[in-house]
Amino acid sequence: MSIQSLIRTIPDYPKPGIMFRDITTLLQDPVGYRLCIDDLTQRYMTYDIDVIVGIEARGFIMGAAMAYTLNKGFVPIRKKGKLPGDVVGQEYQLEYGTDTIEMHKDAIEKGAKVLLVDDLLATGGTALAAAALIEKIGGKVVEMAFIVDLPDIGGSKKLEAGGYAYYCQTEFEGD
Amino acid sequence: MSIQSLIRTIPDYPKPGIMFRDITTLLQDPVGYRLCIDDLTQRYMTYDIDVIVGIEARGFIMGAAMAYTLNKGFVPIRKKGKLPGDVVGQEYQLEYGTDTIEMHKDAIEKGAKVLLVDDLLATGGTALAAAALIEKIGGKVVEMAFIVDLPDIGGSKKLEAGGYAYYCQTEFEGD
Repeated sequence: MSIQSLIRTIPDYPKPGIMFRDITTLLQDPVGYRLCIDDLTQRYMTYDIDVIVGIEARGFIMGAAMAYTLNKGFVPIRKKGKLPGDVVGQEYQLEYGTDTIEMHKDAIEKGAKVLLVDDLLATGGTALAAAALIEKIGGKVVEMAFIVDLPDIGGSKKLEAGGYAYYCQTEFEGD
Repeated sequence: MSIQSLIRTIPDYPKPGIMFRDITTLLQDPVGYRLCIDDLTQRYMTYDIDVIVGIEARGFIMGAAMAYTLNKGFVPIRKKGKLPGDVVGQEYQLEYGTDTIEMHKDAIEKGAKVLLVDDLLATGGTALAAAALIEKIGGKVVEMAFIVDLPDIGGSKKLEAGGYAYYCQTEFEGD
């Protein structure tokens, strides 16, 4: 059994021509889910990290489990308007139009070393916006972790160009 | 240090007169977060449970960590239109209008014993809709777990009336 083999592909979702990589089949499998979290935990247990930041909503799933196994706090980055305290926001480009994510201003200490977590790396737009948020409030992104990389969409190259280290558990080419 | 003392209250959010109980201050505290997850894990480690189901989005945070500690799979219940596979849906009442949550039809086995998880119990509307979804696809809700109960809003009474067992780590009266 491998992490990759448990990820289901749903053709033509959310629109024709897109091969959607669905991690819910991995998460719902107890052995697969444990493989996924243990692999991430083993990678990061020797890193100097202060806090885990997860991006809404699927990034919460891995991020929260990793925060527990690594004995760190968990901080959510959410869609605009979902966090009740004082926030910083960051707009980013979508295929059509823009979106905004937010983070509580007091969520991390200045100088905090952050592991940023999301399920999937496609264009890299959300990950770069999340990194910008973390930096706006004085954090430092040590690395970004994803379950899935879609290298043909170009996000990994953008992260490299931005000087960010990243780790992806699996890779689907041809997307 | 207690779980309750780490939950921040934000007055007049999302609208005047509401005392918003903000669990992000609990989650971002490494000791508090561990207290929260360990308490839930200790409660459920002797329960006969097959799978953890978490409600989007904050229910993913506790649910995913508990799935890991309890060695179960994790299944997300999401807002309408967010799950890529075949889903069942359930509408429920909001203060004004309605909302719909969805779950993958093949997310759990028939007869599966489910622990349902969300961060906060207020009216109970979302929790009851989530339970209905689980039952539509043949699951059985063993118990529902929340970090916060707001008993004055009446959700806990509705769960009791529906015959559901539930557990809340903390309680804020006067809401």
